[in-house]
Amino acid sequence: MKYGIVAFPSKEVQDFANSYRMRYDSHYAQLPPHITILGEVETDEAGLKAAADYLFNITKDAKAFSINIPKVGTFKPINNVIYLKVDADEELYNLNKALHDSDFGGSSQYQYVPHITLAQGITGDELDDIYGQLRMTKIDFTEVIDRIHILYQLENGSWTVYETYRLQEQ
Amino acid sequence: MKYGIVAFPSKEVQDFANSYRMRYDSHYAQLPPHITILGEVETDEAGLKAAADYLFNITKDAKAFSINIPKVGTFKPINNVIYLKVDADEELYNLNKALHDSDFGGSSQYQYVPHITLAQGITGDELDDIYGQLRMTKIDFTEVIDRIHILYQLENGSWTVYETYRLQEQ
Repeated sequence: MKYGIVAFPSKEVQDFANSYRMRYDSHYAQLPPHITILGEVETDEAGLKAAADYLFNITKDAKAFSINIPKVGTFKPINNVIYLKVDADEELYNLNKALHDSDFGGSSQYQYVPHITLAQGITGDELDDIYGQLRMTKIDFTEVIDRIHILYQLENGSWTVYETYRLQEQ
Repeated sequence: MKYGIVAFPSKEVQDFANSYRMRYDSHYAQLPPHITILGEVETDEAGLKAAADYLFNITKDAKAFSINIPKVGTFKPINNVIYLKVDADEELYNLNKALHDSDFGGSSQYQYVPHITLAQGITGDELDDIYGQLRMTKIDFTEVIDRIHILYQLENGSWTVYETYRLQEQ
């Protein structure tokens, strides 16, 4: 099985994101709008429990963090993805770093870019169209993320939450 | 917004349930296979937080419970629903009862029948067909449920987990 670690933004942001995802995100039905903190990791039942325990330990002293969502971004030309850009406190980066520790997920080859995907699995032309529209749309959300979740993937591709971790008040 | 309280069975049971739900459950894409402990309750953001706090208190002393899934059942003719029957320890009934306390969700008009829905939104003829097949299928799962979740519903009908509560070992 695969697991991942995410934060869900507020219902307001999720509803906004879904209004685009329902048309443009090939993973729309698999899980709600989210900020990935650790991407898909292959494991078994024992590995999932170990990851949950590890996460329990590193979140014990972790603090809630503020995010601001000022605009959209894209990973084009590497990936035909449009996302909500997430500007976050250092705390989110620390969490991401702790989860890529060599004792856990191992180091990442990529720089961490917190984001909420709006569109993927689209053509380059579709991307240009949608991205053009979204850049003209006023976007400005600010909120506090005070919990993160570990999820695992079912055979049909959808994700189930295994555990939630509260982060301490700021 | 609406919230609800559920338990997710193991990945094995969820994958089994989804193999039917994908064809026969009109709520397939809204959330993973689950045992409802408290059905949809209308609330606002403050009410969700209050419910989460209430749940934190009643689960502090709650114990994990065993379930056995021996066969399918149906709510026909009241509802065209086919479900996996869930035989559970008293602990699950206690949780359900605590959540229907008058200080919280209010009393339920129905007797609590723990189940995992496989099919809904189908015609009577479809139900007879599918139910007939499923009654001939060998079903026997036994497992321990050691966590429950509070979820809220997005505008698109799908559900996001807000918080997880671990139940103590048996």
